[in-house]
Amino acid sequence: MLHRGRYLEFRIDTVARPDGSLRRREVAGHPGAVAIVAVDAEDRIVLVRQFRSATGHALLEIPAGTLEVDADGVVEDPLGAARRELEEETGLRAGSWTALSRFYTAPGFTDELMHLYLATGLAAVGAGALPPDDDESIEVVRLALHDALAAVDRGEIVDAKSIVGILWVARPARGA
Amino acid sequence: MLHRGRYLEFRIDTVARPDGSLRRREVAGHPGAVAIVAVDAEDRIVLVRQFRSATGHALLEIPAGTLEVDADGVVEDPLGAARRELEEETGLRAGSWTALSRFYTAPGFTDELMHLYLATGLAAVGAGALPPDDDESIEVVRLALHDALAAVDRGEIVDAKSIVGILWVARPARGA
Repeated sequence: MLHRGRYLEFRIDTVARPDGSLRRREVAGHPGAVAIVAVDAEDRIVLVRQFRSATGHALLEIPAGTLEVDADGVVEDPLGAARRELEEETGLRAGSWTALSRFYTAPGFTDELMHLYLATGLAAVGAGALPPDDDESIEVVRLALHDALAAVDRGEIVDAKSIVGILWVARPARGA
Repeated sequence: MLHRGRYLEFRIDTVARPDGSLRRREVAGHPGAVAIVAVDAEDRIVLVRQFRSATGHALLEIPAGTLEVDADGVVEDPLGAARRELEEETGLRAGSWTALSRFYTAPGFTDELMHLYLATGLAAVGAGALPPDDDESIEVVRLALHDALAAVDRGEIVDAKSIVGILWVARPARGA
């Protein structure tokens, strides 16, 4: 174990190769995360723009956040985290929640599992909005689905969970 | 800097908040990566199944890999890396390459940028195939697009780059 931080732990795992020999693997241990495709009554997707220090850029993304871990090591329920993050980042609550997908963001080096939700029936929380996390300065942007797809194509939306979420809701309706 | 490994570096960055105060951020520094949606003459997508020690599971993914960094710190060209990884993991070369997208896999804590390509005109390399990386034991699987989409829906394909790649090529043809 190299470091155990607020959200992440950095460690070196020793993994057996098929031939029985051992290899060291760098792993970023992560409690998991949530991301939300929030669609309003005008079929617009709610996005947030914020500076992402790891990348050095401000990114336009769907609302998202890391699962909280309490002092006893108990990890937050993903749906509860999704409700919390949507409200914190956009000031919105949703009347309807649907689990769309779960996926690993970067399975080559982290166990981060992203829980993706669809949120509809949006209503502003108003004066009761939670304060944002202390280092989050967030601008909320709403884009029609075709504009969100165009932003993906132009490279203006450039993170995996947001592209998955937007492409997912843009899929043609599926039969059985 | 906590650790500088073969591919990853683990470090703690200090970031200024909007109010001027400072905050520590855990960052996994990464040279970038490539992933390939390889589509054969029967419109099947070429996938690879391999054990991913960070997640504890064998995952079914599109071919992918990390950009190599030489002794002088020069990072490999992404298209060259895509050609190398496709051949290493599947024994295939492609006659046509198209850049589809670039995206951050997990911008909350890593700068890993994934370069996504479409590869067509596939041909087996035959006896000249490169040996796989020393810890990679890989099974190659070909799925028709609708079966790949079904595998995404069933949670059998569960990593972000593969879902992006499959949803991307499944998008209806777009006008200008």
